[in-house]
Amino acid sequence: MSPLISNINILFFFFMIMISLLNQSSNAADFCVADLTAPEGPAGYPCKDASTVTSDDFYLNNITRTRTRYPLFKVSATFATTPNFPGLNGLGLSMHYFEIGVDGFVPILTKPQTSEIIYVIEGMVDVGFISSDNKAFYKTLRDGDVFAFPKGLLHFFVNSGRKSTARILASYSSSDPGIQFFTNSIAGNDLPSEMVAKVTFLDTDQVKKLKAQFGGTN
Amino acid sequence: MSPLISNINILFFFFMIMISLLNQSSNAADFCVADLTAPEGPAGYPCKDASTVTSDDFYLNNITRTRTRYPLFKVSATFATTPNFPGLNGLGLSMHYFEIGVDGFVPILTKPQTSEIIYVIEGMVDVGFISSDNKAFYKTLRDGDVFAFPKGLLHFFVNSGRKSTARILASYSSSDPGIQFFTNSIAGNDLPSEMVAKVTFLDTDQVKKLKAQFGGTN
Amino acid sequence: MSPLISNINILFFFFMIMISLLNQSSNAADFCVADLTAPEGPAGYPCKDASTVTSDDFYLNNITRTRTRYPLFKVSATFATTPNFPGLNGLGLSMHYFEIGVDGFVPILTKPQTSEIIYVIEGMVDVGFISSDNKAFYKTLRDGDVFAFPKGLLHFFVNSGRKSTARILASYSSSDPGIQFFTNSIAGNDLPSEMVAKVTFLDTDQVKKLKAQFGGTN
Amino acid sequence: MSPLISNINILFFFFMIMISLLNQSSNAADFCVADLTAPEGPAGYPCKDASTVTSDDFYLNNITRTRTRYPLFKVSATFATTPNFPGLNGLGLSMHYFEIGVDGFVPILTKPQTSEIIYVIEGMVDVGFISSDNKAFYKTLRDGDVFAFPKGLLHFFVNSGRKSTARILASYSSSDPGIQFFTNSIAGNDLPSEMVAKVTFLDTDQVKKLKAQFGGTN
Amino acid sequence: MSPLISNINILFFFFMIMISLLNQSSNAADFCVADLTAPEGPAGYPCKDASTVTSDDFYLNNITRTRTRYPLFKVSATFATTPNFPGLNGLGLSMHYFEIGVDGFVPILTKPQTSEIIYVIEGMVDVGFISSDNKAFYKTLRDGDVFAFPKGLLHFFVNSGRKSTARILASYSSSDPGIQFFTNSIAGNDLPSEMVAKVTFLDTDQVKKLKAQFGGTN
Amino acid sequence: MSPLISNINILFFFFMIMISLLNQSSNAADFCVADLTAPEGPAGYPCKDASTVTSDDFYLNNITRTRTRYPLFKVSATFATTPNFPGLNGLGLSMHYFEIGVDGFVPILTKPQTSEIIYVIEGMVDVGFISSDNKAFYKTLRDGDVFAFPKGLLHFFVNSGRKSTARILASYSSSDPGIQFFTNSIAGNDLPSEMVAKVTFLDTDQVKKLKAQFGGTN
Repeated sequence: MSPLISNINILFFFFMIMISLLNQSSNAADFCVADLTAPEGPAGYPCKDASTVTSDDFYLNNITRTRTRYPLFKVSATFATTPNFPGLNGLGLSMHYFEIGVDGFVPILTKPQTSEIIYVIEGMVDVGFISSDNKAFYKTLRDGDVFAFPKGLLHFFVNSGRKSTARILASYSSSDPGIQFFTNSIAGNDLPSEMVAKVTFLDTDQVKKLKAQFGGTN
Repeated sequence: MSPLISNINILFFFFMIMISLLNQSSNAADFCVADLTAPEGPAGYPCKDASTVTSDDFYLNNITRTRTRYPLFKVSATFATTPNFPGLNGLGLSMHYFEIGVDGFVPILTKPQTSEIIYVIEGMVDVGFISSDNKAFYKTLRDGDVFAFPKGLLHFFVNSGRKSTARILASYSSSDPGIQFFTNSIAGNDLPSEMVAKVTFLDTDQVKKLKAQFGGTN
Repeated sequence: MSPLISNINILFFFFMIMISLLNQSSNAADFCVADLTAPEGPAGYPCKDASTVTSDDFYLNNITRTRTRYPLFKVSATFATTPNFPGLNGLGLSMHYFEIGVDGFVPILTKPQTSEIIYVIEGMVDVGFISSDNKAFYKTLRDGDVFAFPKGLLHFFVNSGRKSTARILASYSSSDPGIQFFTNSIAGNDLPSEMVAKVTFLDTDQVKKLKAQFGGTN
Repeated sequence: MSPLISNINILFFFFMIMISLLNQSSNAADFCVADLTAPEGPAGYPCKDASTVTSDDFYLNNITRTRTRYPLFKVSATFATTPNFPGLNGLGLSMHYFEIGVDGFVPILTKPQTSEIIYVIEGMVDVGFISSDNKAFYKTLRDGDVFAFPKGLLHFFVNSGRKSTARILASYSSSDPGIQFFTNSIAGNDLPSEMVAKVTFLDTDQVKKLKAQFGGTN
Repeated sequence: MSPLISNINILFFFFMIMISLLNQSSNAADFCVADLTAPEGPAGYPCKDASTVTSDDFYLNNITRTRTRYPLFKVSATFATTPNFPGLNGLGLSMHYFEIGVDGFVPILTKPQTSEIIYVIEGMVDVGFISSDNKAFYKTLRDGDVFAFPKGLLHFFVNSGRKSTARILASYSSSDPGIQFFTNSIAGNDLPSEMVAKVTFLDTDQVKKLKAQFGGTN
Repeated sequence: MSPLISNINILFFFFMIMISLLNQSSNAADFCVADLTAPEGPAGYPCKDASTVTSDDFYLNNITRTRTRYPLFKVSATFATTPNFPGLNGLGLSMHYFEIGVDGFVPILTKPQTSEIIYVIEGMVDVGFISSDNKAFYKTLRDGDVFAFPKGLLHFFVNSGRKSTARILASYSSSDPGIQFFTNSIAGNDLPSEMVAKVTFLDTDQVKKLKAQFGGTN
């Protein structure tokens, strides 16, 4: 065997060692794709075995084919959050897509621990949030406009385009934000109507009407 | 001079050097008492000069001498938060003391980014919070009882002791938590009543009534 | 069937769908009540199944019925931390209640990773903390007074009311803070007395005396 | 004056007091809109005076009217980050909109401290990221598809729609993420070409060619 | 039995109670040594049972007996990270020791989510990092010199001591940082060479040469 | 001018535009070098103007030329923390180098909010920390050994090499950790000796002796 070939072989041999070692030494926590079968903790789900992670864990097919409908609001929505998008686990980011039909709206809500930024794909929508000192910050948005909602504050969306559906993409500073719709919260539970009336300053009749509408009891 | 005395003097001399150096080398960020005259940032206020910090920066005299009254709720409260307790800046903790008179209550509210734990000094009080899936977690508390409210969720307090004022101490996981009273938020602003009615599912008459009560316009 | 009734029925049907969907789509991580049977992680315990969570997970009955006694200090205390208050898991908050008898005290200690704020329910107590540059910040507190202790610094409490027990409520910026009593730490272990004497500048006799008192060996 | 009217007036008077006090007591840190004229800190910019904050601080007009062009990549982009969207300061969220022309691409890059989630508004685009163990996770995306990129990893975008521009909206887990284009980084600086060649394993000729292209020296 | 002895016995009895109670009440989360047999989560591994933790969990014998060799770079390295040093779990710190032989180097890399500070034990080494605006910050280091690398930025090391091995100790702001070697990343995968060439601006021949060298395909 | 040359010129023109735009659009917060003349905040110092940052902000010349001497402990030390190494601001990392002479030691101390990892450059040293339940974790370390100290716990170092200086490099999970030497803390202040004796269980004589030694009064 010629010395040249020998040298090349040795070099190749070293390359192979180096590459295998490199791989071995750096299989660190780049990501933590959720093992949705295990119990969640305060920081998210345990990671599934890295060798079983594929591109599909970081992918959601066409979010605009909306899956969840809210006829009362004329809203339909798709969520890209850890439970249906396990690659988001631990990343501190998620997305919602939603459509608001003509005369539709998203009722006043909070995302308890999460900031939000939205992009109007198309349509015309009045959006706003209210600060702790009861000041409303609101704006009429049109195609391409972007708006941000600070963490945890009450906010809402109203389709103000008379004839067209509004299509909106929202991103969140959490992989799995909770959503608290105020009226559902106060009227969809089993608290006595009188107590709800008291702590909301609403008339008891109004509370009972909402309870009937939102499935609450008492 | 005897060698012994000389040695002791040298030793003493070294002690003094050491102590001064120790002091010099460890004047690090144990705390960051707020300089309330400077503009706040996302992590809190700039620190005032450490040499001007005294015990009083970490002290509030008798929090039960309540300073702020809410006649509509029959509530009075004192806050121990960064603006009146600058030593809390950056510590991620604060306290409120409040009293709820007979028939009084704290209306439904959120602390947008903050967990809460309360201790009932005396009295009887119904407390509750509502989760994102509209389930109410509530309890009647008496002297000495402790209750926790997860971050950012709607909650409320109602004095259920027929004849006695309830006295409560609350602690927060933030040095300066915001408070968002729901009804004040929706009725104390300048949003059109029709829009408020829509996003809350309230009757417009109800909204207008609340607007009159809480100082809102439109 | 009249068209009107039919419409109402359809509307009601939609309401029911909407409400069930709302519930389904937002059962997100509002809280993470500790499953104390599972192993803890760096961010706390895994969450127990949300459907088994009740108000009692966020509740502790009368914290002033103290459970743990420290006769040497004339102190008794109750803890409201994750191990006996699983709703605190992940909230970054907890509480201790403690009583200090006449002539009693809480010996010098650190909470290694935790800020603290206290409220004096009743009594008279001298409290203080020491900063990294060896400066003592101390104060005599009376009923209703509030004091804060920055994260991780040495601090102590001494009942200075000659005839009355002091009753104190403390809150922490952690759901399960560790407590490191300095003298217990240096004298309750198996390190050689000579080594302890060296690193504390104490006389070896003093160390041996403390070791005998606090259960240390060597 | 009748007693009734008098009572109403007194009640009204109390309402006004209560409302003003409520406002006064809760003007807390809901948000921290950047004062871009002040120096930034590790957690972001100081907050501008809350009384000067308006809805426009949380708003960006039509992000799709792209402002920055990268002819070499056939890319144009608009940024919604703190420097041009001061309401994002401290929220831990931002957005980019970008278009990739036919045959265009976004060269391989990292966002050093930031996770990313994208939504394809329209077009066809091949995207991918590479993990620490040199495994490529890639996918062909079409209208409406969503993909996530874990924090800090190398990633890229290639327009694979033969005839159409791809339009993409990206969100980030940071209010002002840095962007490090690898080839610009190694070829746009003043490091000696031989050193760059060594640490990249590229041929020196290749490095010099890139340096000429990207404005580097030496 | 004399009263004195009796009193001492009682006192001793109280001491024992106190000590056992103290131990019982403060077995809190001082540390969370990794249970490496359990699945990792976003915040690290679950903690192993505290009663089985020993000093050896916080100890690594002679890190300079390097275990991993990279012949292509003339580098050998030892890692003190959670997988071989379980006491680091949750501490947010780790160490690498590495030697760079004559003419050796550490190729351009990022630690995706981690800051770094290095100390040159001995030798002469050129180090640098490149910022997002393509500016190189570099320096020649000698024995005892310290250098810091901000989070996530591209950086490299070249032995510039003509005749001596460089020995370096690096610390990280993470218990288990990932390492992304740029050239390995782009050339060690299965992405088509043409696509790699496009997104790196490299010539396709150069990419194919690197792919052959680093074990990539396509 | 030939069309070819013209095209190349146009291409070059585009390159120049692109490069300048790239630079302009990505001068984001890669780092935040401390402006030490401005007041610190809870998250660190404000950033100095990025255009004035140089490699030297990330560099410390020979840390082993120790600058601070503690004759009482036979220790000398150099700090690489934000005040003398402004590039560390916001990185969450710092370093100390220290030498312990024959019979020397580092007295028992805490770093209130900081984890620590050490590397023994040379020598023999007994190190240990004590947990909240008063268990000592200790070890004899020799050249090259690595040891970790969990956040905020009491720890110490004793040179156990009979004839040689120990040289140690320590890294911290903070850019500017505080150091609290226990004995200096209790004996270097103005608290009454009787109170110190009480809260430490030390004999008053012992406290007075330490007070004399460490510069305390009262």
